[in-house]
Amino acid sequence: MNKVLLNFVCLFILFSSFTSKANDSLVIRSIYDESLINGASYSNLRYLCKEIGPRLAGSDQAEQAVIWGKKLLHQYQADTVFLQEVKFPYWVRGAKEELYILDNNRKIPLSLAALGGSIATPKKGLKAEVIEVNSFDEIKNLGEQNIKGKIIFMNAIFSSTKIETLQGYEEISRNRSRGASEAARYGAIGYLFRSLNPTIDDYPHTGNMHYAEGVVKIPAAAISTKAGEELSAYLKKTKNPKVYFKQSSETRGEKTSYNVIAEIKGTMFPNEIITIGGHLDSWDLAEGAHDNGTGVVQSMEVLRIVKALNYRPKHTLRIVLFMNEESGVSGGKVYANLAKGNNENHIAAIESDLGGFTPRGFDIRAPKEKVKWINDNWKPLLERDYWLSRFYQGDTGVDTWPLSEAYPDALIVNFRPDSQRYFDIHHSGKDVFEQVSKRELELGAAAITSLFYLIDQQSN
Amino acid sequence: MNKVLLNFVCLFILFSSFTSKANDSLVIRSIYDESLINGASYSNLRYLCKEIGPRLAGSDQAEQAVIWGKKLLHQYQADTVFLQEVKFPYWVRGAKEELYILDNNRKIPLSLAALGGSIATPKKGLKAEVIEVNSFDEIKNLGEQNIKGKIIFMNAIFSSTKIETLQGYEEISRNRSRGASEAARYGAIGYLFRSLNPTIDDYPHTGNMHYAEGVVKIPAAAISTKAGEELSAYLKKTKNPKVYFKQSSETRGEKTSYNVIAEIKGTMFPNEIITIGGHLDSWDLAEGAHDNGTGVVQSMEVLRIVKALNYRPKHTLRIVLFMNEESGVSGGKVYANLAKGNNENHIAAIESDLGGFTPRGFDIRAPKEKVKWINDNWKPLLERDYWLSRFYQGDTGVDTWPLSEAYPDALIVNFRPDSQRYFDIHHSGKDVFEQVSKRELELGAAAITSLFYLIDQQSN
Repeated sequence: MNKVLLNFVCLFILFSSFTSKANDSLVIRSIYDESLINGASYSNLRYLCKEIGPRLAGSDQAEQAVIWGKKLLHQYQADTVFLQEVKFPYWVRGAKEELYILDNNRKIPLSLAALGGSIATPKKGLKAEVIEVNSFDEIKNLGEQNIKGKIIFMNAIFSSTKIETLQGYEEISRNRSRGASEAARYGAIGYLFRSLNPTIDDYPHTGNMHYAEGVVKIPAAAISTKAGEELSAYLKKTKNPKVYFKQSSETRGEKTSYNVIAEIKGTMFPNEIITIGGHLDSWDLAEGAHDNGTGVVQSMEVLRIVKALNYRPKHTLRIVLFMNEESGVSGGKVYANLAKGNNENHIAAIESDLGGFTPRGFDIRAPKEKVKWINDNWKPLLERDYWLSRFYQGDTGVDTWPLSEAYPDALIVNFRPDSQRYFDIHHSGKDVFEQVSKRELELGAAAITSLFYLIDQQSN
Repeated sequence: MNKVLLNFVCLFILFSSFTSKANDSLVIRSIYDESLINGASYSNLRYLCKEIGPRLAGSDQAEQAVIWGKKLLHQYQADTVFLQEVKFPYWVRGAKEELYILDNNRKIPLSLAALGGSIATPKKGLKAEVIEVNSFDEIKNLGEQNIKGKIIFMNAIFSSTKIETLQGYEEISRNRSRGASEAARYGAIGYLFRSLNPTIDDYPHTGNMHYAEGVVKIPAAAISTKAGEELSAYLKKTKNPKVYFKQSSETRGEKTSYNVIAEIKGTMFPNEIITIGGHLDSWDLAEGAHDNGTGVVQSMEVLRIVKALNYRPKHTLRIVLFMNEESGVSGGKVYANLAKGNNENHIAAIESDLGGFTPRGFDIRAPKEKVKWINDNWKPLLERDYWLSRFYQGDTGVDTWPLSEAYPDALIVNFRPDSQRYFDIHHSGKDVFEQVSKRELELGAAAITSLFYLIDQQSN
C-alpha cells in the first residue's frame, strides 16, 4: 500500500509538469519500464494465438477475437469501448488443396494453398499442361496461342538484395493480387504462383487476390518456394509437362463483423483524436502471430501502459482493432468513412502491422518540414537510449491508409520493426506465437506508446 | 564466359579509381549483393553446427573445426593460411549433472549444468542445506556463521529494463565468474547459480568461472531460470531446505590447439594489418551457432567476398579464427603477443562475437575525434541504405581486447548486431543453427566487409 501511494505521488509529480525534454525522457523511461517489467502484450498474444488461433474474417475465431478484444479493453479501463459494424465477402479455403506433377505414371506432390478470394477448381480437379513465366510481360508475349487451355506457373523470385524486405515484397506482390486475371486474359485455366517468400522452404504463403472485371475467373493458388524450385526444374527437362490441382475454396456471401474501439477522452482537446491500431483478422494457415497479433496486442498495450502510469492524454486516444484488413481493408475503410461522416477531427494515427520484431523506428506520412522537426526534436529522445533511429518520410500502413486519405493533414505514422524475418513467415503456416520474441514485442509496444506520448504532448 | 569477362571489366573500372563517395557507395552495394546473392556464410554455418557440432576447446570437434577452417580459407584463395599454437587447460563436463530438491521423501529434479572450470562434487554427490542470496554483499552479510557447510544459491535476476541486453548481462556476470569463491570464503561447500538468461525457460546457461587464489575450490553450476524460480519458491516455504547435486566436471591438464589465420597481402601497405575475427571454440551444450559460429563464418565471408569481387586490399587483411575464447581468451592473447613479438604493425581490427542477428552498427575503440570523423564520413554511406545507425565510442570484443591493449592507437571495432534475442540462447542448449536467420547473418557479413573496405581505403 505504501509503495502504491509512493508510486502515485511520484507519477503525480512527473505528470504535473510536462514541458521539458528532461521530463519527456523520464516519462519515456517509465513507459519502457512498464512494458518490460509488467508487460501484458506477450501473454495477450499467447492467448490470441493459442486459445483463439487463426482468425480469418468471418470465422468463429474472428468473432471470438472481437469479444476477447472488447473485454480486455474494458478491463484496461478505457472510458468507452464500442464496436463498428464491418461487412465483407466471406471466403473459405475448404478442403486441403492438392497439387501433383503428373510424370507419366508417377504423381509428385507439391505444397499448395489457395489464394484468398480464389474460386475452386472443378470438383474433380484441374489437369492441364503448365507453362512457367516470370512476369506479366512474359504472359503477354506468349499470348493466347501459347497459353489457351493451360495452367500458368508464375515463378518470379523474391529479391534477396533489397535491404528492406518490404521492398522485395512490393516488387512482385501484384503477381499474387492480379496474376490470375492477367493469365486468364490469354485463356489460361489455372494460375499457380510461387509464394512471396525470400527463403526456400515448403510453406505456401497465401494472401489476397482479386479478379479483374470482365475477365473469366480461374482458380489461383500459391505453391511453396521449394515446390517452385522443383516445378521449375521439372519443366526444364520435360516436354508438355502436366500438373493436376484441386481446391474447393469459395466466397460464401456477405458476413458482418466489427472493428473494436476503445477510447480515452482527452483532457484538453477531447475532439482531437489520435488513433493507434492493428488488425484482428488473420489468414487461416497459422495463428496470425506477427500478422497481426503483435499489432493488436501492442495497440492494447498502449492503453494499458497509459492507465498503469496514470497518464491523462490531452487528446482523445483511440485504440482500434480493425476487422478484415487481409481481404479488402474493410475495417480501415469503415473507420475512415465514419470518422468523416461524424465530422471527427483526426490529428494523428500510428499503425503496427509489419510484425513484432525489434523496433527500428517509424515511417511518417507528413510534409518534409514536419518530418525534419520530428528528427530534430523526437529522435534525440529515442535514438541513443532506445535504438530507434529511423524517422523517415514514408507510406502509411494498410489500415490507416483510408484515414490518411480522408485527413490529408494528419500525422500518419507506420511503426517499422526490423524486416529481415517477416516475409519468411508472413501469410504462411510459420506465423505462430513461437516466432515472436517477448522482448522484441515489448520494446515495440513501448516505442509506439512513447511516440503516442510525444504526439499527445506536442500537438496542438 | 561473356558474363564473367564483363563482370571483370566492370569490377576493374570500379576498383581502378576509388576516391569518391560515389565509388564507395557502388563498392558497398556490390559487397551486399555478393553476400546476399552468392553468400556462403549460411551453408558454412550449417556445416560447422551440424557436421562438426559443439566445439569445446580441446575437444575432437574443435580440432575438426581447425582443419575445416584452414581448408576453407585455402579454398577462398588467401595468399597464406597458417596456424598459431594455443595452449590452455582442458576442462570437461563429464557425466550429465543431477540436481534435486530433497523434500522429505520426494526428490524434485531441477535442470543443471556445471560451470566451465568447475571441479566435480564428491563422487556420491553433495547433499546440504541451501541458502538463497542475490548479491556478493548478501553473502558477506550472512557471514560464516550462516553459510558454513551449506550450498549457496545465487538468484540474481537478469534485468529486463536494459535496452541493450549486454548491459543486463554485464551487471550480474561476475556472479558466474567469481561467485563460487565468494561463497567459499565463508565456508560454503557448493555454489548454484541462476543462469544469465532474461527469459524464464528450462535451459541452464553454462559459462566460464575461475577460483580465487587461496580460497577452497567448491563445485559450481548453473541452474535454469525456471529451476531458479522453483527453488526460490520452495525455499520461501521450507525450513532447513536441502538439495542434492552431483557433477563430474574436471580439468584434465593442458591441451594444445590453434588460431587459424588467413592473410591477403596489402598492395600498398603490406606491413599494416587489419584483423577480422571470431572464435572457433564454443560451449558444449549445443552447436555454438550464435556464439560464435556466426562470427567465424562472417569473418571467412569477408575474405570470400573480397576475392569474389576481385578487390585488392591496400593493407594486409588477416582473417583470424581464435581458439579458446570461452575459457581464458587464450587465442586472443597468443595473437596479440605474437603480433607484438614480431613487431607487426596493427592498424585496425573488427570482431564479431555478439551473435548473427540483424546488424545495428559498431562500437568503436578510438579517440572521440576519430569516432566523430567516422560518424561524419562513413555513417552516411551505411545508415539510410543499410540500416546501420550505431557508430558509438565503446568497448572492444573479448578476442580483440589483448590486441587493443598492445596497440593503443589501433582502431578496434566491435560489430553490434541487435541484442534482444542473444542472451535467451547464449551458452545454452538453445544455441543451434535453427536460431540463425540467413538474411540477418548475410547482412552482418556484408556490414563487416563494408567497414573493412572503408578502413582499408581511408587509413594511411
